[in-house]
Amino acid sequence: MDFTLSAELLDLQQRTRQFIADEVIPLENDPRQHAHGPEESLRDELVARARKAGLLTPHASAHYGCLALDHRAKAIVFEEAGYSPLGPIALNIHAPDEGNIHLMEEVCTDAQKERWLRPMVEGRIRSCFAMTEPGEGAGSDPTMMQTRAVKDGDGYRISGTKWLITGAEGASFAIIMAKMEDGSATMFLSDMDQPGIRLERLMDSLDSCFVGGHGVLHFENLYVPATDVLGEIGRGFRYAQVRLAPARLTHCMRWLGQARRAHDVAVAYARKRQAFGKPLAEHEGVGFQLADNEMDLHSARLNIWHTAWVLDQGGKGNLESSMTKVIVSEAVWRVVDRCVQVLGGQGVTGETIVMRIFKDIRAFRIYDGPSEVHRWSIARKLVSGGTH
Amino acid sequence: MDFTLSAELLDLQQRTRQFIADEVIPLENDPRQHAHGPEESLRDELVARARKAGLLTPHASAHYGCLALDHRAKAIVFEEAGYSPLGPIALNIHAPDEGNIHLMEEVCTDAQKERWLRPMVEGRIRSCFAMTEPGEGAGSDPTMMQTRAVKDGDGYRISGTKWLITGAEGASFAIIMAKMEDGSATMFLSDMDQPGIRLERLMDSLDSCFVGGHGVLHFENLYVPATDVLGEIGRGFRYAQVRLAPARLTHCMRWLGQARRAHDVAVAYARKRQAFGKPLAEHEGVGFQLADNEMDLHSARLNIWHTAWVLDQGGKGNLESSMTKVIVSEAVWRVVDRCVQVLGGQGVTGETIVMRIFKDIRAFRIYDGPSEVHRWSIARKLVSGGTH
Amino acid sequence: MDFTLSAELLDLQQRTRQFIADEVIPLENDPRQHAHGPEESLRDELVARARKAGLLTPHASAHYGCLALDHRAKAIVFEEAGYSPLGPIALNIHAPDEGNIHLMEEVCTDAQKERWLRPMVEGRIRSCFAMTEPGEGAGSDPTMMQTRAVKDGDGYRISGTKWLITGAEGASFAIIMAKMEDGSATMFLSDMDQPGIRLERLMDSLDSCFVGGHGVLHFENLYVPATDVLGEIGRGFRYAQVRLAPARLTHCMRWLGQARRAHDVAVAYARKRQAFGKPLAEHEGVGFQLADNEMDLHSARLNIWHTAWVLDQGGKGNLESSMTKVIVSEAVWRVVDRCVQVLGGQGVTGETIVMRIFKDIRAFRIYDGPSEVHRWSIARKLVSGGTH
Amino acid sequence: MDFTLSAELLDLQQRTRQFIADEVIPLENDPRQHAHGPEESLRDELVARARKAGLLTPHASAHYGCLALDHRAKAIVFEEAGYSPLGPIALNIHAPDEGNIHLMEEVCTDAQKERWLRPMVEGRIRSCFAMTEPGEGAGSDPTMMQTRAVKDGDGYRISGTKWLITGAEGASFAIIMAKMEDGSATMFLSDMDQPGIRLERLMDSLDSCFVGGHGVLHFENLYVPATDVLGEIGRGFRYAQVRLAPARLTHCMRWLGQARRAHDVAVAYARKRQAFGKPLAEHEGVGFQLADNEMDLHSARLNIWHTAWVLDQGGKGNLESSMTKVIVSEAVWRVVDRCVQVLGGQGVTGETIVMRIFKDIRAFRIYDGPSEVHRWSIARKLVSGGTH
Repeated sequence: MDFTLSAELLDLQQRTRQFIADEVIPLENDPRQHAHGPEESLRDELVARARKAGLLTPHASAHYGCLALDHRAKAIVFEEAGYSPLGPIALNIHAPDEGNIHLMEEVCTDAQKERWLRPMVEGRIRSCFAMTEPGEGAGSDPTMMQTRAVKDGDGYRISGTKWLITGAEGASFAIIMAKMEDGSATMFLSDMDQPGIRLERLMDSLDSCFVGGHGVLHFENLYVPATDVLGEIGRGFRYAQVRLAPARLTHCMRWLGQARRAHDVAVAYARKRQAFGKPLAEHEGVGFQLADNEMDLHSARLNIWHTAWVLDQGGKGNLESSMTKVIVSEAVWRVVDRCVQVLGGQGVTGETIVMRIFKDIRAFRIYDGPSEVHRWSIARKLVSGGTH
Repeated sequence: MDFTLSAELLDLQQRTRQFIADEVIPLENDPRQHAHGPEESLRDELVARARKAGLLTPHASAHYGCLALDHRAKAIVFEEAGYSPLGPIALNIHAPDEGNIHLMEEVCTDAQKERWLRPMVEGRIRSCFAMTEPGEGAGSDPTMMQTRAVKDGDGYRISGTKWLITGAEGASFAIIMAKMEDGSATMFLSDMDQPGIRLERLMDSLDSCFVGGHGVLHFENLYVPATDVLGEIGRGFRYAQVRLAPARLTHCMRWLGQARRAHDVAVAYARKRQAFGKPLAEHEGVGFQLADNEMDLHSARLNIWHTAWVLDQGGKGNLESSMTKVIVSEAVWRVVDRCVQVLGGQGVTGETIVMRIFKDIRAFRIYDGPSEVHRWSIARKLVSGGTH
Repeated sequence: MDFTLSAELLDLQQRTRQFIADEVIPLENDPRQHAHGPEESLRDELVARARKAGLLTPHASAHYGCLALDHRAKAIVFEEAGYSPLGPIALNIHAPDEGNIHLMEEVCTDAQKERWLRPMVEGRIRSCFAMTEPGEGAGSDPTMMQTRAVKDGDGYRISGTKWLITGAEGASFAIIMAKMEDGSATMFLSDMDQPGIRLERLMDSLDSCFVGGHGVLHFENLYVPATDVLGEIGRGFRYAQVRLAPARLTHCMRWLGQARRAHDVAVAYARKRQAFGKPLAEHEGVGFQLADNEMDLHSARLNIWHTAWVLDQGGKGNLESSMTKVIVSEAVWRVVDRCVQVLGGQGVTGETIVMRIFKDIRAFRIYDGPSEVHRWSIARKLVSGGTH
Repeated sequence: MDFTLSAELLDLQQRTRQFIADEVIPLENDPRQHAHGPEESLRDELVARARKAGLLTPHASAHYGCLALDHRAKAIVFEEAGYSPLGPIALNIHAPDEGNIHLMEEVCTDAQKERWLRPMVEGRIRSCFAMTEPGEGAGSDPTMMQTRAVKDGDGYRISGTKWLITGAEGASFAIIMAKMEDGSATMFLSDMDQPGIRLERLMDSLDSCFVGGHGVLHFENLYVPATDVLGEIGRGFRYAQVRLAPARLTHCMRWLGQARRAHDVAVAYARKRQAFGKPLAEHEGVGFQLADNEMDLHSARLNIWHTAWVLDQGGKGNLESSMTKVIVSEAVWRVVDRCVQVLGGQGVTGETIVMRIFKDIRAFRIYDGPSEVHRWSIARKLVSGGTH
């Protein structure tokens, strides 16, 4: 049992921290940011900076010239990147691309990798992951999926509607989950400029940190040749699991960084701002909130590190990543909410970055499994004895 | 002890409810709404509808042809109005005008009333209340006020900066708090089109429910003649209290309506949406949240009613309104946050009105005294024996 | 809508408060109190004092010379009685007798009333209510009842085991719930000194405020003649509901009194005890807890009053009493837990009465329906539209 | 960063677990346990068993033939010991002896060690730590100490009153904190059978897990020769810190074990007990509580491990141990409270060990610094920049 970080990792942490401070934070007020997310040109600029700093797509394999970070190293680097809402975009480790890269490295054919993965790793294109559906379709319960794939000659025809598809606008390709005639699910790869794909609209969203926002996609008889099936037919739900456990952990890492940022802003404010004869921070009512933040951040980090270690040991980490997802998403939410409160009137305005983080972070208690679904999953493992 | 509502009040409740359903909710998606708030023309349309329905400015006195609602009747009517974010605008009971009307009826000279109060009561003009300051100025602790009023001949010269001034853009006049040379404070009335007043900018804000948004105002040697002093010189802090206790209570009423709306949306969704083989609402993890909502709304309402009764009995209600402000602002926040959670992915998008309520309602834990200031005030009353 | 208490009720409140202060609190350290509860002789002394003060069994009808308090009046008087753990014993309004009296007044035959109800109302005997069962028997889900009643000539034979039976030791008679051959349930009355009844043991319990503690009862072929059936055959579950809604509300009233007592002790201590240069109460970390107590007590009281009013109007109050039970049981628990915390080391010792209240009050989140069962019941009413 | 436990440590964990299961748990219902704590003879029997198993006083140094566990190894072993309320007594790692041993190994002279430390390490005698005072004396704020030590020839005369002194009855010697004439504090060692020491009484306490209970001690002109000063004159507060940081961490370890025990009992019950047609555990309302327990236990453990590592690296761990104390004491409290709730009626009786743990564990949010004092200390470190 040892919490020491290697000198190499400490150095990488420091470099990332410096990069965020010097190259990313200065762009936070860049006007190329809108209610639906940053513009592509801003992303391009950020990616170029990370590329130059040698920090681009650091979790991808050495095959692509990347750092091939293990989960523990990701815990360190991604938290630093998350210190700015623009950091994950710069490093090309934002959702859904980060998780798609991970999945595609594991499952794609070489041809698929050259065609889609390599340019994505190089930060030249973006992707989206089309699973969630409106109405009575797939949400927390993916088995309710309505989108259908039907065999057509050598390939498949996909029809259905997806929504809440992050990054859909501007994505070059999509990973599409569809239900087969036998009730199983399959993942398909498709360029976005196909006639069978239509971006119906961008959704208004509470967050504004994802390039391409969140879209509604219609698939109408979209043709996907057999060569563009991702992995094997009928294993879609299994791959979704492969993607999910690490993907939800990297969300934890990035959001921890954001919450730390908000906390730092609140601490600085509480040190300086006077009320009733002394700095805010010397009021226990404020100081206790800052102390709770510190404890929440610390516990969140320890949970992330532990689950990262479990994954690095080759464990599936289903229980640990479920627990960590709930613990971290709820802890960072409390932290950011307290920061808003400490900042008072300013907290609910654009005067500091905290309001933006507040809006961006709320959805994390919902996506990649809402707290309720994870709690239920943890409970079932407990009851069946699967936790020990 | 009797919780019966009079037939007359039940009728007024029903009429208001119907008005909101028929005349206000259909305008909720009107395009004349922006990040800073609804446009004036939308407000004009809403006000016209309320005027026609006989519900305009119902808390103003019979002198102006209004309903002169007491606090308990306001509790009923304002909750109904709050059921739509546009309802308080329609009824002309939104902040800060609602509280300004109350204060001005109590304190203004007849001339001041004719000039400013009457057109405001008639919904023809709007006002703002300029108290809060940036930097090291007046916030939770109003004694830190930096804006200064200096005697100049028959009148006064005011200089200083205010921010978070709700409704500043488009307001016809302002009530301005300024510190006197002896450390006391005074309230001044001034038209907004004076050379000494400049709206520096609109602030980005989490909420978008106030016409005129929240602005930064500069006063530079603004001249205010003695006739435009509101009440007496040096009694500004006392008037602020007169304004605050009822004003914070009407906030509670309106926000209770909004939270009830969000709850109704969540209940309807949970009844219909299936997951894991049954409606969401039949999952205890969801059902318990809805039950907690119901309890929070109910307790909030009882607290509002009780404090309204205390005020109607002629009590100052300082303790009760502090307690009710904390209880209600925190209860409605929990309610709306749970609604977001129950709605899942939709909850963090514009697909329902809940996201808008979520953004609009957060600041209520801060303005009119943040929870921390009220808790401290309640504690001091307790310790000094002032609660019994 | 009116929160005024009548002069008569204020007088009764004052008299009860004085009685508790003068006649009951001085006996709180009487040595006749043990881990299982106070001795009968202490009860006799307390009852005699209440009788003399004209406060005995104040909720029973005028037929028995009692005050026939309605639910709102009970809310006032029972809270005052609850200010001492011994108060409800003195006034003969403790569980389970208080609820049994209510039920028996509604359902018993005249003969049954003369035999059992009258002496209980007069404070001369005690009763118990035998419903809950060990193992896989009736608990939160009463339909799982294992105790069986079988027809035998003119009467019935009852066999089964009950536990957590409050007041069993020393009770003169029992109301026994048993399942009939057709699956319905019936309530039976029986003296406790029958050969078919055996008190197996007293259970160790966290609380020590009930005379007679909590016992395990065995029924073995207990014979109950037809004349001793309580109400009609097969209506046991219905009568349990008749008993439960008001019974759980009177629990709320009494426990509110206890929590107020603990709060008063904590406030007094926080005013006096110094730490880090000032009284504890002037530390926000303590003051905020006291403020939260005040708010919790206030909200609890308003909920009780409202539900009492609903019952007084003839409403069943199922939803309201469920909500109030959850709200009050959780609020008073938070209050007492905070009091322990404020008292520090003393809070976990017998130096003040707070530790005793802490131990006594915990079970209230469980009996008369645990929070979870009520939340579920509230949720189902919500979903079926039964709340409006 | 590595969470692997060495094979050696895993073996020790397993041996301790087995020892608790086979040799300690069977004694949990031994009648030699009372409201004030277990009898000495029961302790002797437990200690003998641990001695035989080679697990006695495992944190003491090899000099005494002990295992000289480092903090991380203690985290493993003490959690296992804590799985039974009697476990820490058996292993001789209960408070206050465990912390006294640690302190005395660091500070005592060789002569003092032979006289007091060795027999304590061998489990033959017990000690107490006399710091806390009643009335306006030393509590959360130790500088308020009233007990005085005055120079008298070669030695000192101590007068004052201490309370909440754990293990006082039956202790062979005491470590006594007293204030010097210059305002500094000193620790003194004294046998308990001295004429100047009187055990006034045992206090009624919520917990019953400490041999010797909690006593009130009077010192009246107690003579302590210079040779029996613990460490240096005037360094009492510093030594208290030396003792406190690790002592509060070992409390965390032991209580984590207790909470895990309660959780295991609750899980087993929830798996078996049926209600409303399925096992309790399949109700989300119960399952979510079990999931929260699992998360709380996991986070608590990670925090303990991390702080243990900090201490093993030679860090003072002031911030970390403060944070861990708050996090763990509050987490285990939530866990045990939920277990009570899940167990329902049984949870508040002696039918399972959970009620005992519930009573024993409450005080941990208070002693070794109440949550409020730690939060304040964390906040001050934050504000002064001492956390990074």
